[in-house]
Amino acid sequence: MATEMRSDVAVLDLPRPYLLFLGDVREAGFAKTAFGLRDWAPELCIGEFALPGSTVSIGLPALSPAEAYAKGARSLVIGVANYGGIILPGWVDALVDALANGLHIISGMHGPLHRIAALREAAALHGRRLIDVRVPPANIPMATGRKRTGRRLLTVGTDCALGKKYTALALSRALTARGLNAEFRATGQTGIMIAGRGIPMDAVVADFEAGAAELLSPDAAPDHWDIIEGQGSLFHPAFAAVSLGLLHGSQPDLFVVCHQPGRMTVSGLPDYALPSLGETIDLTLRLGRRTNPSIRCAGISLNTAHLDDVERQRVLKEASARTGLPTADPMRPGPAFEALVDSCLRTS
Amino acid sequence: MATEMRSDVAVLDLPRPYLLFLGDVREAGFAKTAFGLRDWAPELCIGEFALPGSTVSIGLPALSPAEAYAKGARSLVIGVANYGGIILPGWVDALVDALANGLHIISGMHGPLHRIAALREAAALHGRRLIDVRVPPANIPMATGRKRTGRRLLTVGTDCALGKKYTALALSRALTARGLNAEFRATGQTGIMIAGRGIPMDAVVADFEAGAAELLSPDAAPDHWDIIEGQGSLFHPAFAAVSLGLLHGSQPDLFVVCHQPGRMTVSGLPDYALPSLGETIDLTLRLGRRTNPSIRCAGISLNTAHLDDVERQRVLKEASARTGLPTADPMRPGPAFEALVDSCLRTS
Repeated sequence: MATEMRSDVAVLDLPRPYLLFLGDVREAGFAKTAFGLRDWAPELCIGEFALPGSTVSIGLPALSPAEAYAKGARSLVIGVANYGGIILPGWVDALVDALANGLHIISGMHGPLHRIAALREAAALHGRRLIDVRVPPANIPMATGRKRTGRRLLTVGTDCALGKKYTALALSRALTARGLNAEFRATGQTGIMIAGRGIPMDAVVADFEAGAAELLSPDAAPDHWDIIEGQGSLFHPAFAAVSLGLLHGSQPDLFVVCHQPGRMTVSGLPDYALPSLGETIDLTLRLGRRTNPSIRCAGISLNTAHLDDVERQRVLKEASARTGLPTADPMRPGPAFEALVDSCLRTS
Repeated sequence: MATEMRSDVAVLDLPRPYLLFLGDVREAGFAKTAFGLRDWAPELCIGEFALPGSTVSIGLPALSPAEAYAKGARSLVIGVANYGGIILPGWVDALVDALANGLHIISGMHGPLHRIAALREAAALHGRRLIDVRVPPANIPMATGRKRTGRRLLTVGTDCALGKKYTALALSRALTARGLNAEFRATGQTGIMIAGRGIPMDAVVADFEAGAAELLSPDAAPDHWDIIEGQGSLFHPAFAAVSLGLLHGSQPDLFVVCHQPGRMTVSGLPDYALPSLGETIDLTLRLGRRTNPSIRCAGISLNTAHLDDVERQRVLKEASARTGLPTADPMRPGPAFEALVDSCLRTS
């Protein structure tokens, strides 16, 4: 299974290390691929490359493609995701320049790289590869709803891009650190670039969405943990289909709700209020019970990167009091996070 | 918009009339494409063609491809859908024979016809077309959640294949008969073959599912009705993603719950109990309110084709009493169905 997924998703031979391309991004939330690689695979990232107009830095050395190649980079990774998942026309000249200067291009966008004639031609001219990570494996079966062996945890969110991947990665590391057999299951382009395999769940045909989730976390030993990266939100007017298929197919025993305190509306859709933690728990339980009647919420993960210590403690306490559940920022090691891990390991 | 969808989905130039191919189907539920065409576009159907082993007839003359061609047929339509949506190896010889005898082939299966070498070669040899209806339009945008003008009704189901398409077609005809401006919006292969256009919602990439639903029923005049064919069920462990994306993107003002009395478990998944009508109404309201806070349930549509008159009256009364809503079998004209239509037209 794992071997098949590797060959289908074809990410294990990504030419490394990476130069992270930021385009002309002005909102850090849209650079989550770059931040994710910096935070979880720093050994693979030697620099960042932004276009004029970008106001975001991820704190790596700013390098041109030529400079990055001279320092050893072998691929430029599209480190930004816009609404729509497309390569913008304003990026193409810079990407052609990267191909001319020795770099392959790796993308997790919806629109395949080879669809852009200028990139196709430059890649052919210079002998470079155009690698699309957002290509699901072929022949995904329909979901069967059959209960699988092993333990599963899914991270779910009140919105997109607020910590589901980081939470899953942190929990996966924490369980491993406790000597448990835990595996991070990547469901999006950045996670796949970090983990080296996975299924890009938002690129799967809707009829096969739950089937892909079943494929992603196959039968395993009873003490094996799959820590599954959540996608979207059940409350997102564009992406809830992805979230529900992933929930049904994952059959999680546990879920952790991820939220960013202070975010009041859906990212990019200011007319849509974010659900409360309680609403998110309640709807996830209700829908998740369909394929795993014993699903439970293990706790809350808050993304507090933008808060000072006082404010951080306040929001953690408030969320814990409101939900009655262990609450932590998984990027802040300590007793709160260990209590969240304890809650995940509770057997009933 | 409509013109674009026509050209993308490319169903308006389907060579007609049809010979309906039943394969080796043994369960009428899997022949829903053939039944749908017979019931809603009888003028297009001149015969049926089954393989040895099939135990299902749809009541049309049994004709070989050669006989059908001689009677005027110009296409063989794959009239069956199996779990997985694939052309079975045992069908290929018969399909090659149809191509050799003058017929084009029209399919709504997931697996494209041209992927099968024998069909590709026979089509090329005989100058025939292989037409896949289950191909969504290119460049579907992400959903925006923006409220659109016009009225929308969605049929939803307790399960697959129990009357959502028939209910939408019957309601669309009934509203038109009352002089209203109503349009049937097809979301599956059979509906598209009947209507001549639509979007095959289960073949859309999950991230664009709600966006496709928004595209399917664009802004319209305030008194215009879109009657949208539902897909799957929010309770189906394989297909709920399709149902939720369609619900969110359709933003229905109204929905009608479709059910087949006596069906206790999900078709093909005997371990999964069907939800009650009440649970279906409740979950549809809860999820549908996200994109249309004024969504309401207009009534219940029961598929009673398998019941006698006494039993039919009993189940209709029982469902109406249990839900407090108008309940009818839309295939049985009469006061009950007119009351259901009245309920749809109620303005509050």
